[in-house]
Amino acid sequence: MMRRFVIIGQKATASDDFLLEDVPGTGGRLDVLLRCVRAALLFSHGLRRDVVVYLVLLGGPRAPRVLRLDAAAVKFVRPDERSLAMLARKALANGPEARAGEFVETRPGISVMNGGLGDAIADLGAVTRYVLDEGATDIRELAELGRNDAVFFLGDHLGFDGATRAQLTTIGARPVGVGPMSLHTEDVIAIVSNEIDRREALSPSVRSL
Amino acid sequence: MMRRFVIIGQKATASDDFLLEDVPGTGGRLDVLLRCVRAALLFSHGLRRDVVVYLVLLGGPRAPRVLRLDAAAVKFVRPDERSLAMLARKALANGPEARAGEFVETRPGISVMNGGLGDAIADLGAVTRYVLDEGATDIRELAELGRNDAVFFLGDHLGFDGATRAQLTTIGARPVGVGPMSLHTEDVIAIVSNEIDRREALSPSVRSL
Repeated sequence: MMRRFVIIGQKATASDDFLLEDVPGTGGRLDVLLRCVRAALLFSHGLRRDVVVYLVLLGGPRAPRVLRLDAAAVKFVRPDERSLAMLARKALANGPEARAGEFVETRPGISVMNGGLGDAIADLGAVTRYVLDEGATDIRELAELGRNDAVFFLGDHLGFDGATRAQLTTIGARPVGVGPMSLHTEDVIAIVSNEIDRREALSPSVRSL
Repeated sequence: MMRRFVIIGQKATASDDFLLEDVPGTGGRLDVLLRCVRAALLFSHGLRRDVVVYLVLLGGPRAPRVLRLDAAAVKFVRPDERSLAMLARKALANGPEARAGEFVETRPGISVMNGGLGDAIADLGAVTRYVLDEGATDIRELAELGRNDAVFFLGDHLGFDGATRAQLTTIGARPVGVGPMSLHTEDVIAIVSNEIDRREALSPSVRSL
């Protein structure tokens, strides 16, 4: 089953002018989103080929833009934060002059779009939608998890603002939680991925459909 | 309940001479261990006060050394990898001239020891011991989890070598697994922490004992 993660960076920069020596400060906490890329795309010594990550970048003069990483097509992704920052910087520098709402591939599997959350949602197609929310229904209780393509919307360290929350409600994203603590977004992704891995392992026949 | 994580870096440097611009290459993949520190110690906007992390550093001319971070005493830990690398570099530069096997605090909550895994084990005291191992008993099936102080031993991207594995068997560390995939060590820590969080939330009375 395809898994998609959409992470919304309220202040994360959509420009390439952040410093590798201070990604948190100069990138509007872009570091939070970069660590989510690692958690979503990589396992030990490999890429999760069935995962696509969208970083919705709402900070800086070029915002809003969306950076999309498709594990089925990317050639090589290193897990360390500096390498991920360099990868993001290159993609944002080469960013498209294309029409708003249209992804342009800047290198294999990595695309940039001038647009915001609504445009990212339009790119997702018909998939089951979940929004990670503290105190919501436990992901372990979702009977259907792992049986259908799914997208998970996650906030950064600031959570969701009111407009984003309303937008996710409008598209019918179902609130799900991962336990009693308020966790870093990348840890939430690790826990969601683990739950889906377990479901797929229990239903190998479903996986191969 | 106290939680301790011991991460063994087979090539991770015990010296301070690695470059912030290339921690993976010059630090013997110290980046893997630094990311584990974040996963173990931090939750959203806070420190997990009941956690202690041990990094067993077996690479470079000053090896073996152990870096210990005690969340109950550390003042401030940033989640980004570069900040964690700077923190480790300072601690390893100021490292002790003390007797082997003795932790010396270099700043609040952060200690360095000249010694290896055996010395780290001696520092743990009487706690339930687990070793993370692919294909072992699922952590979700451990009835006692969250009821006692526990330590979890984890390998880096290289796993455990034969001597380490034998040492962990000798001390009775019980093999546990976290699902069907081979995951990054930091993701394993996130999943273990989540499982314990859930147990403690279900048994608040146990927590307060």
